[in-house]
Amino acid sequence: MLKVAILGGSGYTGSELLRLLLSHPNAEVTAVTSERSSGLFISDTFLNFRDTSLKFESLDLKALTKKADLFFLCLPHKTSQETVAFFHNAGKRVIDLSADYRLKSADVYREWYKIPHLYSPLLKNAVYGLPELYRNKIKKASIIANPGCYPMSAILGLAPVMAEDFINTNTIIIDSKSGTSGAGRSPAQPFMFCEVNESVKAYGIGVHRHTPEIEQELSSLSKKNIKIIFTPHLIPMDRGILSTMYVRLKKKTTLSDVQKLYHEFYHKEPFIRVLKNGIYPATKAVKGSNYCDISVSLCRQTLIIVSAIDNLIKGASGTAIHNMNIMYGFDETAGLMSSPASP
Amino acid sequence: MLKVAILGGSGYTGSELLRLLLSHPNAEVTAVTSERSSGLFISDTFLNFRDTSLKFESLDLKALTKKADLFFLCLPHKTSQETVAFFHNAGKRVIDLSADYRLKSADVYREWYKIPHLYSPLLKNAVYGLPELYRNKIKKASIIANPGCYPMSAILGLAPVMAEDFINTNTIIIDSKSGTSGAGRSPAQPFMFCEVNESVKAYGIGVHRHTPEIEQELSSLSKKNIKIIFTPHLIPMDRGILSTMYVRLKKKTTLSDVQKLYHEFYHKEPFIRVLKNGIYPATKAVKGSNYCDISVSLCRQTLIIVSAIDNLIKGASGTAIHNMNIMYGFDETAGLMSSPASP
Amino acid sequence: MLKVAILGGSGYTGSELLRLLLSHPNAEVTAVTSERSSGLFISDTFLNFRDTSLKFESLDLKALTKKADLFFLCLPHKTSQETVAFFHNAGKRVIDLSADYRLKSADVYREWYKIPHLYSPLLKNAVYGLPELYRNKIKKASIIANPGCYPMSAILGLAPVMAEDFINTNTIIIDSKSGTSGAGRSPAQPFMFCEVNESVKAYGIGVHRHTPEIEQELSSLSKKNIKIIFTPHLIPMDRGILSTMYVRLKKKTTLSDVQKLYHEFYHKEPFIRVLKNGIYPATKAVKGSNYCDISVSLCRQTLIIVSAIDNLIKGASGTAIHNMNIMYGFDETAGLMSSPASP
Amino acid sequence: MLKVAILGGSGYTGSELLRLLLSHPNAEVTAVTSERSSGLFISDTFLNFRDTSLKFESLDLKALTKKADLFFLCLPHKTSQETVAFFHNAGKRVIDLSADYRLKSADVYREWYKIPHLYSPLLKNAVYGLPELYRNKIKKASIIANPGCYPMSAILGLAPVMAEDFINTNTIIIDSKSGTSGAGRSPAQPFMFCEVNESVKAYGIGVHRHTPEIEQELSSLSKKNIKIIFTPHLIPMDRGILSTMYVRLKKKTTLSDVQKLYHEFYHKEPFIRVLKNGIYPATKAVKGSNYCDISVSLCRQTLIIVSAIDNLIKGASGTAIHNMNIMYGFDETAGLMSSPASP
Repeated sequence: MLKVAILGGSGYTGSELLRLLLSHPNAEVTAVTSERSSGLFISDTFLNFRDTSLKFESLDLKALTKKADLFFLCLPHKTSQETVAFFHNAGKRVIDLSADYRLKSADVYREWYKIPHLYSPLLKNAVYGLPELYRNKIKKASIIANPGCYPMSAILGLAPVMAEDFINTNTIIIDSKSGTSGAGRSPAQPFMFCEVNESVKAYGIGVHRHTPEIEQELSSLSKKNIKIIFTPHLIPMDRGILSTMYVRLKKKTTLSDVQKLYHEFYHKEPFIRVLKNGIYPATKAVKGSNYCDISVSLCRQTLIIVSAIDNLIKGASGTAIHNMNIMYGFDETAGLMSSPASP
Repeated sequence: MLKVAILGGSGYTGSELLRLLLSHPNAEVTAVTSERSSGLFISDTFLNFRDTSLKFESLDLKALTKKADLFFLCLPHKTSQETVAFFHNAGKRVIDLSADYRLKSADVYREWYKIPHLYSPLLKNAVYGLPELYRNKIKKASIIANPGCYPMSAILGLAPVMAEDFINTNTIIIDSKSGTSGAGRSPAQPFMFCEVNESVKAYGIGVHRHTPEIEQELSSLSKKNIKIIFTPHLIPMDRGILSTMYVRLKKKTTLSDVQKLYHEFYHKEPFIRVLKNGIYPATKAVKGSNYCDISVSLCRQTLIIVSAIDNLIKGASGTAIHNMNIMYGFDETAGLMSSPASP
Repeated sequence: MLKVAILGGSGYTGSELLRLLLSHPNAEVTAVTSERSSGLFISDTFLNFRDTSLKFESLDLKALTKKADLFFLCLPHKTSQETVAFFHNAGKRVIDLSADYRLKSADVYREWYKIPHLYSPLLKNAVYGLPELYRNKIKKASIIANPGCYPMSAILGLAPVMAEDFINTNTIIIDSKSGTSGAGRSPAQPFMFCEVNESVKAYGIGVHRHTPEIEQELSSLSKKNIKIIFTPHLIPMDRGILSTMYVRLKKKTTLSDVQKLYHEFYHKEPFIRVLKNGIYPATKAVKGSNYCDISVSLCRQTLIIVSAIDNLIKGASGTAIHNMNIMYGFDETAGLMSSPASP
Repeated sequence: MLKVAILGGSGYTGSELLRLLLSHPNAEVTAVTSERSSGLFISDTFLNFRDTSLKFESLDLKALTKKADLFFLCLPHKTSQETVAFFHNAGKRVIDLSADYRLKSADVYREWYKIPHLYSPLLKNAVYGLPELYRNKIKKASIIANPGCYPMSAILGLAPVMAEDFINTNTIIIDSKSGTSGAGRSPAQPFMFCEVNESVKAYGIGVHRHTPEIEQELSSLSKKNIKIIFTPHLIPMDRGILSTMYVRLKKKTTLSDVQKLYHEFYHKEPFIRVLKNGIYPATKAVKGSNYCDISVSLCRQTLIIVSAIDNLIKGASGTAIHNMNIMYGFDETAGLMSSPASP
């Protein structure tokens, strides 16, 4: 059994990671940290864990080093910078769920996150942990930068056409709809029940921090300098991201050609389900699972691609486990095969 | 007091119309019909009306003719065709909330609704009842074709830039998110609570019947033959439509120029609120009201326009009353000034 | 026009009061205060008020005295104690929506609120503002203690049988289910969307502060010392309280006798709807209105009474306006006759 | 691997059973039937199963007999009567999730279900499949009558005090709140999204068919003829039942004595979590799991017991699997140990 520790376990991402790891056949959780809740039973913070006897401990890096071989970091960005460096220097492997090691360029990081990256030489060691694209690099990586939730839904939806040369790369529009767990667990007025319920709104138009992450990966896939239009929306539901993407075709293509492209691109992937013509993704059909459902439609020379994921699983903790499975040679689907739950 | 009748009062649109008309200072509801519920108290179908003693009656056109001067038709499309004609021929005025008289072309109607229009000569008599665009025509109209809910949200969002000549009219994308009341009140599996709740999905991509209606009005505004990309989504909430629209600018423009354009276009309108820079619409901020909130953003040569309405009010029954107010010279805001309710 | 001020306008109760008063035919809002938001436009805090130009001002009691004749206090309990006293001493009338003047006994207040009442001599001047019970006292009152939301739903449901002598007053059980707006607008982890959504829970069993308020009024109605069992529950919806009440009959009675009793007790009340046999209240049927729907059932010598209100209207701001209407001789239903909105 | 078949797989109970069985280590699903959907892929009815290639087949009893050794029946009541008999006579074991074999008395069945029981001699062969009470009988049973969802939540909450002699058995009140999946998957107006959302209501007061089932089991536990007051409520959420139960104590007892009683009664049970003093159940804390959380409070000589279950798992399909595990000597928790998912 691989010994793993979860740092920053009092948020939704950390608790979902814990939930999934508790039933993983090859991993054992030896420590879960939380500064706020140190010393408390996990079951006092998360009622769903009433049956466990685990306690949160404080973030004592030295003591933690001895307890595990793989460290999952669910810390706020900025804090992750040095924590990743610490474990890396201690010869440990790290899967970082924050944004700190996702952007290859320290300048772009500084531009969007408004703080310098103090460990920028390490950025080249970090592998962007999107299994469908970087499986081979992930195997040997010591630092995994686990993708953001919106980027995961967008990049998986667009990857097949970015690799080809038939879309106009100047006109990529990503209109995403996210459940509220993506906003995290800290109390904040805009995410109170009565503010979110019975409403839908756009936010952060043109300034959302997931923008450069998506652009970096689409640029890498297309070998061009891609700039996107990205509009996130908040939806009154707990889990799920649906991204509706619009790209203009350069030349006449048939829908069946594009669908074939998607099927071929993903046919070996255990967690991608390319849907039949006329069937569209719904977040409920992936809730509680590591699946990403994708549909492709064609309308007036515009491709309309829709993808759906569970933002806490495929968009965060499930992918973190998927990365672990690849890094350690476990079955890629180990601990991740529960069917979506509906209703 | 103007005598009005509601035909087809057992759906959500009809009941919302009744609710609003019950407190209108210039109108009196003299009849509400329902084939299914004829003879029953309205309060047996709609629990919120427990305090009224109104009964549904059957759809006896001749008898109804004598009861009112203005007829609101909340009937299914196709049925509306002849009912509108009947009242028109009887010298009565009609506000038709179905789709039957919205499209100017009987051919386009046949293409999208798959049935012929049997009263096509009457189409030229019908005025598209979007007050912000057709106020003068509405005054004298005998037949009002009340706009669809999606078209209302889209056309109001796009009208100011369609009249100008600085957008690329080939690339208009409308990504709409609608609450579930838009699907109507008849039992259907996809709209059961457990199917809609905790999920978001796209539907009818490229084939939604509101498409030609939006295209007709945008074409009229721009004097060009406009074709749009329109993707509706279903959201787990009762009321509200948020439309996020993307259009490419032809030439360099500043955001403040565009915002000025919107403010000028709508500054006399009692129900349009153009939001300050950086503030975006939320459906909850218009729920229960006849408002349409609109924001404009600029990102990489693309205008991102967001509009929010209550689909049952501004998107249906509120606009029907607005049209009535204009037709009869009442104060335009009569019966429509309740503030949005939040939470 | 009566000049009124709202003190503490940045919570849900204050904003709902403002919304209702804005369309009241006999009242004009001359000031709305908020310590947190002083100087800001109300529309920056509450997006639904985007169309108003009102600003929050600070809580300067002297300055406020000159601005209005009636003061609505939506302040936290404890703060209300002295603010009520201030306006009372200044010869103004006050409707206090906090709990500070509801309990007649300063000792009981101290026991449940854990602080002393520093203005206890004033308690005898305060009238419990439940219009259906205290209409005559309210007319002349200078201080109105507006009822709590749970007490309103429970007392209205039980009043007819408390006045009679046929129930066992030792076994009154009140099982209440409340929407989340009852918890207020301040950010707190338990009321975040992802905590409340898709869940129902009991809370504060045996210790909820509305208990002594209900007991005081039931004791007064029955001329006995009533002790109740009260269990509140949190429901994933914005508005509404449904209270299900169980009382044991002392002697054999028929259901129709009890229903007759309820109809007679409430037949002149404009806001109480006693439902027909076999029809039960639903919070949606009263949402957005000042109604209280009540049903009575009989099962194995136990009366099961169900009541439904909108907690922000009949359970708070609507009743405050109802009290104002009575105090100033306005039509009792002025500003309160909007039909419930459904869906 | 045990071969199992699911009869009536197109409802929520059947699909949840399938979901759980697909990851069961000792069972293999060899057939899933549906009259409506016969011949269709399961993934066309339930989008969450997009990754399976199973098809619904028609209800051909003879053909099915050869395909499995254990039959799960998720058929409507009445239909189950003869289907259970058929498999029983064919020497197969059956777990019936309908109500047909739950009531020991054919007369009581007829009274509440308004139809005769045509296979009443078989009733004595059926074991009420509540594992915590009937483990030994379940081991050898050929027919399991799987408990109803409300009865499961109520009986588990009350069992410890029914076995003792310190409550007044004439005054048992069960106030239950259920998510909407309990109403099934067939389209019906009262369970449309816009009817259920933003509302809570009571229904079936005094006439709900789960009443005699609860009474039968409480009578059996207490050796008295128990009659209950049972009020179900509909809550705007997918899953979960919270039951709040009120019983009067006969003699003075301390809360800690009662809590001790509960802990002792359930301390060996893998799926019952008796909560610490002051902590109350929430349906979200058991969602997606087979747990039942229980709290006990004492207030004015009245015990207030609250229980929470996932109605589709502990209240239906999870218990069916638990029964299977006991019948075949599998680990009792096999296939049932997934942690609750929150949010």
